[in-house]
Amino acid sequence: MLDLEALLRSRIVDVPDFPTPGVVFKDISPLLADHVAFAGAVDAVVAFHGRGTIDKVVGIEARGFLLAAPVAYQFGAGFVPVRKPGKLPLATLETSYDLEYGSNVLQMHEGALQPGERVLVVDDVLATGGTAAAACRLVREAGAEVVGLSVLLELGFLEGRALLHQAEPDLEVHALLQT
Amino acid sequence: MLDLEALLRSRIVDVPDFPTPGVVFKDISPLLADHVAFAGAVDAVVAFHGRGTIDKVVGIEARGFLLAAPVAYQFGAGFVPVRKPGKLPLATLETSYDLEYGSNVLQMHEGALQPGERVLVVDDVLATGGTAAAACRLVREAGAEVVGLSVLLELGFLEGRALLHQAEPDLEVHALLQT
Repeated sequence: MLDLEALLRSRIVDVPDFPTPGVVFKDISPLLADHVAFAGAVDAVVAFHGRGTIDKVVGIEARGFLLAAPVAYQFGAGFVPVRKPGKLPLATLETSYDLEYGSNVLQMHEGALQPGERVLVVDDVLATGGTAAAACRLVREAGAEVVGLSVLLELGFLEGRALLHQAEPDLEVHALLQT
Repeated sequence: MLDLEALLRSRIVDVPDFPTPGVVFKDISPLLADHVAFAGAVDAVVAFHGRGTIDKVVGIEARGFLLAAPVAYQFGAGFVPVRKPGKLPLATLETSYDLEYGSNVLQMHEGALQPGERVLVVDDVLATGGTAAAACRLVREAGAEVVGLSVLLELGFLEGRALLHQAEPDLEVHALLQT
């Protein structure tokens, strides 16, 4: 039997000092390149929620797209991107979130979600939770329902889940792997 | 019966003067948000080549990821990203291509493709062909075989197909839609 967790774990590479000194970057590209690991990760996200339960998948630029788009496809759901400023051509909703130094802005097209739609937010990594919380805010601002957040990898030592639950107390957070 | 071409065409929106004055941007986000159109586009790319014929799908950052990743998933293939400089953390192959003013660089991880692997390059739009030609160069530099290029939309008036065939005479170019 396939031990999916062990396979996924073996396909994520630690890259020290990327993008800046002192940071250990979790590179998921070996996982994406392995068709068994890639399909296994997508299928595990879909199986956790169940087909037919999700109307739209929201994916976060740019690595988040790589898991979110096939998850949307396999759910039979539509896909909606959340992007950095200047990338989406039509009128947008936007929200900002704090970083250690400064802040970031994320945008989503107005009208991309309909009121009441059931939405799953998907990203590659849950770190401090700031990005995920911002994406959830955009979904709720559009009047849609956040069914949950699914990520490939949760970096437990950053305690993003706790921060996220301050903003979104009822959010179901599902990580395929945790460190 | 579903008229896929008409559906896809109806879900691409012209946005004048984006990202710069005089350019008409083809926004594919309504297509991605419509689960029938999105799945139809993915399935049409896979059906054109046939399952079991592709080892890896190469997708071009960032909108190209949105079609390429689910296409890789549905082929049962691995996915390999081609990205702008500074995004990939490990050693890369790189190539540059000319723009109207200046040039762009694209990178792919070394070792992401194995010699002899059958590779499909996937992007959202075929415009001048410069990006697609650069991606094909990276695939061949890795020793792999470019089986073809699949895009959602070919902007015929830019004659990218002709430019691409100067660099890649035998490349099979498959566009779901043409303007």
